[in-house]
Amino acid sequence: MSYSVHRGRHLLNTPGPTNVPERVLQAMVRNPMDLSDPVPLAVIESCFQDIKKIFKTEHEIFMYASNGHGAWEAALVNTMSPGDLLLVPELGNFSTGWGEMAEALQMRTETIKGDWRQAIDPEKIRERLAADTSHEIKGLLIVQTDTATSVTCDIPAIRKAIDEAGHPALLLVDTIPTLAVTDFRMDEWGVDVAVTASQKGLMMPPGLGFVAASPKALEAHKKATSQRRYWDWSLRLASESYRTFCGTSPQSQLYGLRAALDMLLEEGLENVFARHKRLATATHRCVEHWGKAGAMELNAIHAAQRADGVTTILLNEGIDGAKIRDVCRDEMQCALGGGLRNLSGRAFRIGHMGDMNEALLYGALASVEATLSYLDVPYEPGGVTKAIDYLVAERKKNRDG
Amino acid sequence: MSYSVHRGRHLLNTPGPTNVPERVLQAMVRNPMDLSDPVPLAVIESCFQDIKKIFKTEHEIFMYASNGHGAWEAALVNTMSPGDLLLVPELGNFSTGWGEMAEALQMRTETIKGDWRQAIDPEKIRERLAADTSHEIKGLLIVQTDTATSVTCDIPAIRKAIDEAGHPALLLVDTIPTLAVTDFRMDEWGVDVAVTASQKGLMMPPGLGFVAASPKALEAHKKATSQRRYWDWSLRLASESYRTFCGTSPQSQLYGLRAALDMLLEEGLENVFARHKRLATATHRCVEHWGKAGAMELNAIHAAQRADGVTTILLNEGIDGAKIRDVCRDEMQCALGGGLRNLSGRAFRIGHMGDMNEALLYGALASVEATLSYLDVPYEPGGVTKAIDYLVAERKKNRDG
Amino acid sequence: MSYSVHRGRHLLNTPGPTNVPERVLQAMVRNPMDLSDPVPLAVIESCFQDIKKIFKTEHEIFMYASNGHGAWEAALVNTMSPGDLLLVPELGNFSTGWGEMAEALQMRTETIKGDWRQAIDPEKIRERLAADTSHEIKGLLIVQTDTATSVTCDIPAIRKAIDEAGHPALLLVDTIPTLAVTDFRMDEWGVDVAVTASQKGLMMPPGLGFVAASPKALEAHKKATSQRRYWDWSLRLASESYRTFCGTSPQSQLYGLRAALDMLLEEGLENVFARHKRLATATHRCVEHWGKAGAMELNAIHAAQRADGVTTILLNEGIDGAKIRDVCRDEMQCALGGGLRNLSGRAFRIGHMGDMNEALLYGALASVEATLSYLDVPYEPGGVTKAIDYLVAERKKNRDG
Amino acid sequence: MSYSVHRGRHLLNTPGPTNVPERVLQAMVRNPMDLSDPVPLAVIESCFQDIKKIFKTEHEIFMYASNGHGAWEAALVNTMSPGDLLLVPELGNFSTGWGEMAEALQMRTETIKGDWRQAIDPEKIRERLAADTSHEIKGLLIVQTDTATSVTCDIPAIRKAIDEAGHPALLLVDTIPTLAVTDFRMDEWGVDVAVTASQKGLMMPPGLGFVAASPKALEAHKKATSQRRYWDWSLRLASESYRTFCGTSPQSQLYGLRAALDMLLEEGLENVFARHKRLATATHRCVEHWGKAGAMELNAIHAAQRADGVTTILLNEGIDGAKIRDVCRDEMQCALGGGLRNLSGRAFRIGHMGDMNEALLYGALASVEATLSYLDVPYEPGGVTKAIDYLVAERKKNRDG
Repeated sequence: MSYSVHRGRHLLNTPGPTNVPERVLQAMVRNPMDLSDPVPLAVIESCFQDIKKIFKTEHEIFMYASNGHGAWEAALVNTMSPGDLLLVPELGNFSTGWGEMAEALQMRTETIKGDWRQAIDPEKIRERLAADTSHEIKGLLIVQTDTATSVTCDIPAIRKAIDEAGHPALLLVDTIPTLAVTDFRMDEWGVDVAVTASQKGLMMPPGLGFVAASPKALEAHKKATSQRRYWDWSLRLASESYRTFCGTSPQSQLYGLRAALDMLLEEGLENVFARHKRLATATHRCVEHWGKAGAMELNAIHAAQRADGVTTILLNEGIDGAKIRDVCRDEMQCALGGGLRNLSGRAFRIGHMGDMNEALLYGALASVEATLSYLDVPYEPGGVTKAIDYLVAERKKNRDG
Repeated sequence: MSYSVHRGRHLLNTPGPTNVPERVLQAMVRNPMDLSDPVPLAVIESCFQDIKKIFKTEHEIFMYASNGHGAWEAALVNTMSPGDLLLVPELGNFSTGWGEMAEALQMRTETIKGDWRQAIDPEKIRERLAADTSHEIKGLLIVQTDTATSVTCDIPAIRKAIDEAGHPALLLVDTIPTLAVTDFRMDEWGVDVAVTASQKGLMMPPGLGFVAASPKALEAHKKATSQRRYWDWSLRLASESYRTFCGTSPQSQLYGLRAALDMLLEEGLENVFARHKRLATATHRCVEHWGKAGAMELNAIHAAQRADGVTTILLNEGIDGAKIRDVCRDEMQCALGGGLRNLSGRAFRIGHMGDMNEALLYGALASVEATLSYLDVPYEPGGVTKAIDYLVAERKKNRDG
Repeated sequence: MSYSVHRGRHLLNTPGPTNVPERVLQAMVRNPMDLSDPVPLAVIESCFQDIKKIFKTEHEIFMYASNGHGAWEAALVNTMSPGDLLLVPELGNFSTGWGEMAEALQMRTETIKGDWRQAIDPEKIRERLAADTSHEIKGLLIVQTDTATSVTCDIPAIRKAIDEAGHPALLLVDTIPTLAVTDFRMDEWGVDVAVTASQKGLMMPPGLGFVAASPKALEAHKKATSQRRYWDWSLRLASESYRTFCGTSPQSQLYGLRAALDMLLEEGLENVFARHKRLATATHRCVEHWGKAGAMELNAIHAAQRADGVTTILLNEGIDGAKIRDVCRDEMQCALGGGLRNLSGRAFRIGHMGDMNEALLYGALASVEATLSYLDVPYEPGGVTKAIDYLVAERKKNRDG
Repeated sequence: MSYSVHRGRHLLNTPGPTNVPERVLQAMVRNPMDLSDPVPLAVIESCFQDIKKIFKTEHEIFMYASNGHGAWEAALVNTMSPGDLLLVPELGNFSTGWGEMAEALQMRTETIKGDWRQAIDPEKIRERLAADTSHEIKGLLIVQTDTATSVTCDIPAIRKAIDEAGHPALLLVDTIPTLAVTDFRMDEWGVDVAVTASQKGLMMPPGLGFVAASPKALEAHKKATSQRRYWDWSLRLASESYRTFCGTSPQSQLYGLRAALDMLLEEGLENVFARHKRLATATHRCVEHWGKAGAMELNAIHAAQRADGVTTILLNEGIDGAKIRDVCRDEMQCALGGGLRNLSGRAFRIGHMGDMNEALLYGALASVEATLSYLDVPYEPGGVTKAIDYLVAERKKNRDG
């Protein structure tokens, strides 16, 4: 059977992990050095400084040898105590998941139910907080984008809702799929705790988690009685040897991070955001075209809430999203995201974040189109052409404007 | 300007160098060892054995630290003497170029003129050889595919022509763009000298040249009086220390070659050929669709002569092929081949050889389509869709058959 | 100044991180794949199976994106509850540190004081446990080797002490600096929880933590009420998607781990242990020779308790160990470990674990000898010669024997 | 058998290939780009400019996908014609080898016999040239260091001899084992053709050859009638597309070269030379100490003629140099050079050039000492100690001076 062995690079269009640039891979081809050597210490120190630029913060940064779930946990155990109540506006699988983690960590959560296709109205948040006159709610768990649903919420509007309610709850934001993808402004937006991980917009292999903490969060930390050591902020703030990491620092990944930060700062964050916006819009045009055959649609209802880093495609009843994903990956050599939890089997997701460009996106969209054709899923042919049309029109505007 | 920094892997669709698989790059991340160490010696020896399987020969192999031009030269100076006459059926830039090299090396050449869009009729070769009753012609320089024109010729038919003419000339074949792309059978087809290089079907970085030599070629070698040392076969056949290389062997590249040979043999040569054939046909369908707007066509007239590894697109007068190539590479991040010599500015070329798959080809074809649109070159939109249609139909045949 | 730029590979003789073999670095040069792709899933599964062989266990394994401190924490929060009492026989900085972590995690600890130069007598452990008739003590925190002091303890003897006391406390063992260095037999020795990390005997970059858990530990886990999610065993045992990792798996490191496990299993664990034993003994001979000048001695008093992976050299009052370490690293390009906590400034450490051989050890010992000379520290010259004498004698025995 | 699997990096102390720094390996982990892409073109152009700084020339540079033998051949066929007479002062295997190559290329050679332990007296060269009143001699083939014998000659003195004889012969110098090891000044010393290769002082894998040519050499080139194409200077000087390489440029290696040149220029050539001189002298002290037992001595008689990059050790009759080399490599994991041609079996060589430092040299010298002990070769123990003594004394001078 002539298709049995794969050749050629696989396209990676999952919403994490994302493509790791050669420059990052190169930086990781390195024998470790003594942890106290000035060379790696300077690399770590510079990463601390430059990751602040990505978060747009001047506050404190904590780095962990962990994935994003580790960073989630660090945010919680450092600022909350067992029994604390957290408000969770539901955007999809990941707001739910972060809430479940809080429950597992012996905190309590209250969910503002969502429909997984649009963001929670900030007014509902304001109302709930205003009603909490005893300030039982200690924090809000917000995912800027839920990668399961591709729905993005409006952080400044949520900040405004909290302020209007005059509520002291901490604003904790998961920027795992948005940092270095979509604009995020920790300080300007009054975010108290921001969480991210290495394997999405930061273009790194998984294995590093980051938490940024505002002075208010650090204040709350002092009173928070959760059990913690590995994630503990106090230990790091107090001790030189623990300042960077609790235990051995993951040197290879830090060399890679250094390269990734260089790349982002060279491109310029505004250009990074604009690039992702274009790729997302091209994907939307393509999917809307396929959807004319009536079998699929963009999951995020409102254009303004559609994520720049990932697109969730909602399928009609009877169409097997898991099959689409499997065939696209195993036959077409293009990896997609699957439907998660409520959307399991009913959706698939195209990631377009990180080290991504138009040529690679075309390859991915065409691979999906080929998969739909191969599986006899109803679709309007020519989605890729629509993506080309949009991206070329943008380029012409840029050239001629 | 938001497009100023490139992100994401560039697509490499030149007809050499081609993509180097991660497995090959990995193999080259290695500090050298002593040249006499059994480890690298065993790697080199195994490469000698396995490259024979790719050439489908049991004859002698010579490897050079060089590029393809070096291998061309090695073939000539080892079998020819100054003043010797070589017959060069013209397929395009590379048959011409090999002939020019022979002239520079003080041999003489006689060209059977071609039109750069089809192969020379073997009957013409037979006639010319039959007329050479004094056997002045010492060899034929044949490129199996000329990558400038994408025209492929029929080696067994040429062998037959030589045999029918009863002529003793050596048959020298350039398989640089065809080895591990299109079937080539050195021994079965009676080829005397076959030449290739590392950076095409062999999926390696440039820097290794190969020559395979039949017993008849080795016999001719003994009488050939060209100046030579670096390329000299006798030295290698006579001396243990020179057996593998004249001087230091290029170890990193040999580790890479070992990995590349493993990949080819695991996939199976017949599967490798079938994959390239499918990718080529998909490209042809796409280009033929674009061409409906009347501005371009496949350069190779006869379907049977179209190369499996590269497709040359001939443009109408007034369309600037160099511009297409530059914009596709510099803006769209997809590198193509340009028009060479007679075709300079009048053509561009899409490479689809080596570590290539359907997803990557879609990305390249869409990038070209975007370029045509961006430059307002007349084309029928939807070429990529045609490529998808063809490749999915092939997959369905395979699945259902 | 002609010494200002370093050239040539640095020697890495810290007791972690250790040298990462090229084969491991190569394996990590890889773009990530979809987390659900069968290729990385199979790699992860095989790592789970093979790491068991290294722990010599058939019990459960948990892998974490973390360093060794993370693995420490995972061991504690999965088996203990706030307020639980842990017995900590003091071997040095790391038994103390693990105990401090337990305290920070709201457990209680009781230390059996040691002198940092010899292991705690198992009889003292037996006595203390026998006295604990109410079984208040829930676990023992044992470091097989304390890398700060290079003192190694006798795990089977400790097991025997627990059994003789008829005490139900769990036996938790830190094998971070001993796994794949010195023999460790989880199941045979009745260890309940074993902890390790990637950057020592496993020859990997830092960033992976491992915990092995016996059925008894899994039973204790069910009743342990510590807050936990990232480290939680139940979640992993219950859920397919969490089985391997809580969140995104650190794919690059898992490819590297696969290569490292291959190397260890190819060498054979018994050979790995014998190699480390020889390197350790050679280091001891060298240090004992230097010490004839009266300024330094091996920190571990009893030969049988000296670690196979690291050697701590205790310095006379007035000799600055930190200076020795700094000069050896910054001038001589050989990184050593420093004195920790009680030994701060009074000791330095030579690591000889992981991807280490005689030639590299000679380089390190000679670099230390050069440093002693450069700093005018009293030492008997010729330590390296003693190391050579010992290692050659061993080789001759092996050859002739 | 516990020694059966090697672990830990092998020491590479052959006089080429030499250690490739991680920074160079990293730079080579890169998918190729289009040959016409501005990115690789800029890299190539910058290499042309910076390699001139290493040769200390402002003249023309030619780079080849080849090894050093290729560069030798390029030097000959570009400046000489069949029948031309070349004068070859014999320093050892490599001056002889270059001469043999010239003979194979149909030139004639005349050797000034040497004893392989000292350089030819320039006066002898002057005499021979002065006697050649018809200027039959067209060039001198000079190896700055012969790596077989470790004898270095005095290029300015040879230039002076030529000038005093008033002879027009070209001065061709092989700097393969000396460039970026020992001072070489192409322009100031009046060298006409300088040849080098990538795998020694340039710290690259083998596979690149370099030739620098003075205006006088370019003038001679015009009249030289040797057969040539791959090596041809005219083609490159005349044609933009051939300017850099005849055919496809070896991109991976050029990225590596870029990194290596950066490293050399950052260290500063004078520091590079001083470092090599120190390492060489330390090696001499060590060998002289071993030699006190009467079984071996430094091959190069005169201290001033001893090479900075390699040390040849001459063994007494009855001592098997090949065995020493084999055991040191296969058992001790330290690769040495062997005795060549006249010295076959009677010598071994320790390379100390390129990416080399004191720590690595100590490891190598100790490995040799262990080998001598293991094989019961008579030697005075403690050679490494002598090397330490010397290098520490130098460091103290530098510190205190």
